Amino acid sequence: MKQVAIIFSGCGVFDGAEIHESVLTMLHLAQQGIAYRCFAPNIEQHHVINHITGEEQAESRNVLTEAARIARGEIQDLAELNVDDFAALVIPGGFGVAKNLSDFAFKGAESQVLESLKSICQQFNSKNKPITYLCIAPALIGHIHQPGTKATIGTDADTAAAVNALGAEHVECAVTDIVVDELQLVISTPAYMLASNIVEASAGIEKAIKRLAQLID
Amino acid sequence: MKQVAIIFSGCGVFDGAEIHESVLTMLHLAQQGIAYRCFAPNIEQHHVINHITGEEQAESRNVLTEAARIARGEIQDLAELNVDDFAALVIPGGFGVAKNLSDFAFKGAESQVLESLKSICQQFNSKNKPITYLCIAPALIGHIHQPGTKATIGTDADTAAAVNALGAEHVECAVTDIVVDELQLVISTPAYMLASNIVEASAGIEKAIKRLAQLID
Repeated sequence: MKQVAIIFSGCGVFDGAEIHESVLTMLHLAQQGIAYRCFAPNIEQHHVINHITGEEQAESRNVLTEAARIARGEIQDLAELNVDDFAALVIPGGFGVAKNLSDFAFKGAESQVLESLKSICQQFNSKNKPITYLCIAPALIGHIHQPGTKATIGTDADTAAAVNALGAEHVECAVTDIVVDELQLVISTPAYMLASNIVEASAGIEKAIKRLAQLID
Repeated sequence: MKQVAIIFSGCGVFDGAEIHESVLTMLHLAQQGIAYRCFAPNIEQHHVINHITGEEQAESRNVLTEAARIARGEIQDLAELNVDDFAALVIPGGFGVAKNLSDFAFKGAESQVLESLKSICQQFNSKNKPITYLCIAPALIGHIHQPGTKATIGTDADTAAAVNALGAEHVECAVTDIVVDELQLVISTPAYMLASNIVEASAGIEKAIKRLAQLID
């Protein structure tokens, strides 16, 4: 049975991994008969956001510990991820990707990526193992893949310009569709960058996972 | 468009709402063309559990604030729920139901239910509006519905005995199936009381939501 790694960036759209996208990733992988294991970096979150008010809470939380909530406790430190154990990688979205895994939310075209994540993604890439980036996660592509690698990011012009400045090539894409860079084996879909409801998000993610399943078959 | 209320008990299987069941409830409702609104009580969680170690963390979190993570911020205080606005109610599982919405996890057959929740559930019931209870949530049924109302709870004998002692009638049920009490308009399914993976949980929840859709059609 093929096995895929999923990397979470916390637990909650405004300061961590987007929960719907994370669960839908697990659902659609399992429905394709693909096993998965969950990982997250053992680092402090950039901050903690009250998801009702949008305000910062005066506390600190750990990305790995919070991501464990989505994974029902079955999660490992990203430092333990051995690329040889997996056929592919999926990174769901949420502001955690742009706040914890990188600083894209704050620095855009000048952003940096967590070094341990960059190294792991580049290992998948150098071994010709596909990576699926959901929602805002394609903001990482320019740091990891060859210049001009195709990436979705939604329809916001400033965000798309930042993604391009980082080295990727933004491609407009409907919420229920995917963009595939056949050379870099990179799949992306807008998910909640565009989705107005969970059915739309699920449709795009399902399509992305089905294409991933084909690539690792 | 028919509208259903969902009541969350936090965010995370060990101290709050089970995240997969919560997201799958939203997904399957939306796929049936049913609108939903999310609610949670504005109370402190019983405790905060580290979902990797299972140990208690020395901090406090609010059930409504944490549940907002699952709802992407679109959630209301349970005190604002007007039963007249909804055709039905769904309560996903997770230990939060047995720790925050009730004390079933600690007191079993001697447990009590949060008074505001009990009142709302009884209003749905008295207006002949169906309620779907997932996973451990059927532990609430004995407090709310007529004696002998049918309920699933999994296969653990002690848990089933406690559910019966509270006044419900436990019925064994496969993870991908549902139990319906036609008189009380109560639907239940074991979900992660029995599910060994997310596909099994999704199958039972999908069946429960499809039946709910028929009842409110």
